[in-house]
Amino acid sequence: MAVEFELEGNNLIVRDLIAVQAIDRGFFGSPFRGSRIELQLTPEEALYLIDVRGAVCRDGEGNLVGFNDLAERFDGKKFLARYFCYRDWRDRGIVARPMSEAKGNYGRSPMGKYPSQEYQPPKVNGKALFFKDDLMAVIDDNEVGRRLYEEEWFGQFGTYKAKKHGQFLKLDAYETLFLMQHSRLKLNEKEKQIVEAAINRRPDFLALYEVYEDWRMRGFVLKTGFKFGTHFRLYFPGAKPTLEDAEWMHSKHVIQVFPRDSKLLISEWARAIRVAHGVRKTFILAIPGKKQPGEEKVALDFLLYHRKKGIIETPKNDKPKYVMLAFSEEEEIGGAELASAIEQAKAMGLDLILSICDRETSVTHYRIKRIELPGSGYEYYEIEWIQP
Amino acid sequence: MAVEFELEGNNLIVRDLIAVQAIDRGFFGSPFRGSRIELQLTPEEALYLIDVRGAVCRDGEGNLVGFNDLAERFDGKKFLARYFCYRDWRDRGIVARPMSEAKGNYGRSPMGKYPSQEYQPPKVNGKALFFKDDLMAVIDDNEVGRRLYEEEWFGQFGTYKAKKHGQFLKLDAYETLFLMQHSRLKLNEKEKQIVEAAINRRPDFLALYEVYEDWRMRGFVLKTGFKFGTHFRLYFPGAKPTLEDAEWMHSKHVIQVFPRDSKLLISEWARAIRVAHGVRKTFILAIPGKKQPGEEKVALDFLLYHRKKGIIETPKNDKPKYVMLAFSEEEEIGGAELASAIEQAKAMGLDLILSICDRETSVTHYRIKRIELPGSGYEYYEIEWIQP
Repeated sequence: MAVEFELEGNNLIVRDLIAVQAIDRGFFGSPFRGSRIELQLTPEEALYLIDVRGAVCRDGEGNLVGFNDLAERFDGKKFLARYFCYRDWRDRGIVARPMSEAKGNYGRSPMGKYPSQEYQPPKVNGKALFFKDDLMAVIDDNEVGRRLYEEEWFGQFGTYKAKKHGQFLKLDAYETLFLMQHSRLKLNEKEKQIVEAAINRRPDFLALYEVYEDWRMRGFVLKTGFKFGTHFRLYFPGAKPTLEDAEWMHSKHVIQVFPRDSKLLISEWARAIRVAHGVRKTFILAIPGKKQPGEEKVALDFLLYHRKKGIIETPKNDKPKYVMLAFSEEEEIGGAELASAIEQAKAMGLDLILSICDRETSVTHYRIKRIELPGSGYEYYEIEWIQP
Repeated sequence: MAVEFELEGNNLIVRDLIAVQAIDRGFFGSPFRGSRIELQLTPEEALYLIDVRGAVCRDGEGNLVGFNDLAERFDGKKFLARYFCYRDWRDRGIVARPMSEAKGNYGRSPMGKYPSQEYQPPKVNGKALFFKDDLMAVIDDNEVGRRLYEEEWFGQFGTYKAKKHGQFLKLDAYETLFLMQHSRLKLNEKEKQIVEAAINRRPDFLALYEVYEDWRMRGFVLKTGFKFGTHFRLYFPGAKPTLEDAEWMHSKHVIQVFPRDSKLLISEWARAIRVAHGVRKTFILAIPGKKQPGEEKVALDFLLYHRKKGIIETPKNDKPKYVMLAFSEEEEIGGAELASAIEQAKAMGLDLILSICDRETSVTHYRIKRIELPGSGYEYYEIEWIQP
C-alpha cells in the first residue's frame, strides 16, 4: 500500500508506523519535533514520494492534496529546478539530504596539481604594428618573428599548421600586451590605447588577460580556443609548435574565463563545456579576481551521497561526497555566485556538483574539481560532465 | 623571379609586362585606368603576393615597402580579418575577386523547402500551475497531461525518456504560452504576467516564442535544444514521443534564434554552430521580425569562385558561386547586420559565406543556405561548416 502523509500547517508528517519505517529505510524524512516516532518530509521529498512512489498526501480534514496544491504552497526560488535535480539523484538509487544536516569539513575535495614552471619571458628587439579593429599585431621582421614563434610559441608565423607557407608573425591582443609588459616589445600604439581598444570590443578583456598572464608566467602556452568554443586552449610547459611540419601537438585542456561580475544564462554557460566535452578536452574554469565586499552568498541545495565499491553511500554509514547547486536551463548564473558556491563547498571539504534541469526536466550534472597552479594566487577548476 | 609592383599614391600597380601576364593568369589585379597593359592590385592582393608569393613592392623612389608599411597605409575596418580570409580562399587554389565586379543576379542560391503541414492545436480542458521562477508549468491532471504529451508532444510526462516513471505534465514557457493562446489552457497567472516573467529572465523571449509558434503552427514539434547547445531541437510533422519506451525518436535539426536587435561576439555565435556540428545536427538559424528603418547596410567582402567537375571556376569562364562576409574571432555580429548581408547575397542570387579568422589567423567558413517553410512569413537559414 502506498505511503500516506499529512499536511499540517506547513509541515509534512508521516505518522503511520509502517510508513515511518519504510520512509526511514529509504533515507527520506527527518525526526519530527525531535522524535523518530513521526517523520517530517521536506517539500522535495514529499513531491518525490507522490510523483514517483505513488504516495498520498491529505490535509487535516482528510482531503487529497495533489502535486500542484502542495507545490503552490511551497513555491519559491527555483522550486521546480531543485525538485527535478533532487528527483534525478534519487532516481539513480543514490541519496540526497537537506543542507541543514551538513557538519564540519568532510575532507573529500582533493586538489589536482598542475606542473607549473617559472618562466622568463624573452627580451624582444623588434617592433610590431597593431591593428585596432582586428585586435592583432604584426611583426614583419621575420628574424624576430620566427624566433618568437619557434622558441616561445607566441603568435602565428606563416600559416596556421603550415608555418613555411607565407611569413610574418601575427600576435593576438593577449600576446601583444604580454610582450609589451614583459618583453619590451615596441608598438605603434601605447599600451593604454591597446587596452582601451580591446576593452571597447570585449569588456572582459582584462579578466581574460589576467588568466593568460597567470598561466604564461608559469610556463604554459595559451593559444586561441576558438575551434573548441572557449577563450584559450592550453599546452603544458615545454610545448613548442612542431619543428617539422609533419607532426602537430594537440592540446588536451581548454580554459574558459568567467569574470566575477558577469552573468550568463545557464544554457549559454553549459554550451562552452559541451563543446570541450565533444572534442575530449579537459575544461578548466577561471574566475579571476578576489572576493568583493557585498557579494551575495548563494544557498546550496542538497548534500549528496554517492557510491563506494558497488554499494551506495548512506547517511547512516558514510559521509556525503558532494554538495549540489541546482539550476534550471533558463536561469542566470553569475561569476561571483559560482565562486561563492565553490567556496562554501570547499569549506565543507566537498566537491561542488552543478545540476541543471532543462526545459524537459532532464538533468545534467557537472562536477567541479579544484586545481592548483603552483605559484598562482588563484584557484582554477576542472569541470566535467558526470553521470552519477 | 618574384613579381615587382609599385606603390604610387594609393595605387598598387604592376608595370612589368611579364609580371602583368603572370598576375593576370592567376586572376589577380584589374585593368589600371581602363587598360590591361598595366594592372592595379587591391590591398589584399598586394599583401597576398608579398606574403605568400614573395613579391616585392617599391615606392616611387625605389625603396622597399614592407608588409606593415603597406598594411598601415590601408588599415581600416577589419583589415587583417579581410586579408586572412581572402588568403585562405586563395590558398585553397580558388579565386576571390573584389565586390565591385558583381553584376546582376547569378541565380545560384537555390532555396531548400521544408515539409510543412497545417496544424490544428487541440482544445485543452484543464488547468496548469505556472512556476514563475522556473518558467515552467505543471498540469497534475494526468488524463489531460498524458493526452497532450502522447498525441501532440507538448511538455514532458513522467520522466525524460521514461514517461512511465513518475507522472504529471511539465510544460516549458513556450509550450505554456502556445497552449494558452491556441488551446485555451487555463493557468493560475494571466498571459501578461507569464510573458513578463519570461522577458524578465530572458529579454529575447518573444523572439524565441515567435519562432516556436511559427514552426509549431506548421506541424513541427520543437523541444528544448539544451543538450545540443541551441534554443530548440526540431522534429518533422508527425513526430510523436515513442509509443513504447523501446525506441526514441532522434531529431536531426536544431534551431537557434538570433534576434535582429541582438549582438554577439563571433566566437560566441560560432560556438552554437560548433555544438550542433559535433552532434551531426543540421543547424537552422532564425532571424525573426521585419527589417527596421535605419538598420545599417553591411558591406560584403569578396566575390567567390569555387570548383566544378574537378576544375576551378574562374572569372573568365564562370559566374561567382558565393559572396563572402569576413569577420575576426573577437568582432561582434548583429542580427540585423547578418540579415542585411543575407538579403544582399540573395539579391545577387548567391549564397552567403561567413568566414571567420581566429586569433591564430586560421579561417573557418560557414555557408548560409536559405530555406523555405511554406506558410511562414519568415525565411530561415541552414548554416553548415564547409571546407571549400
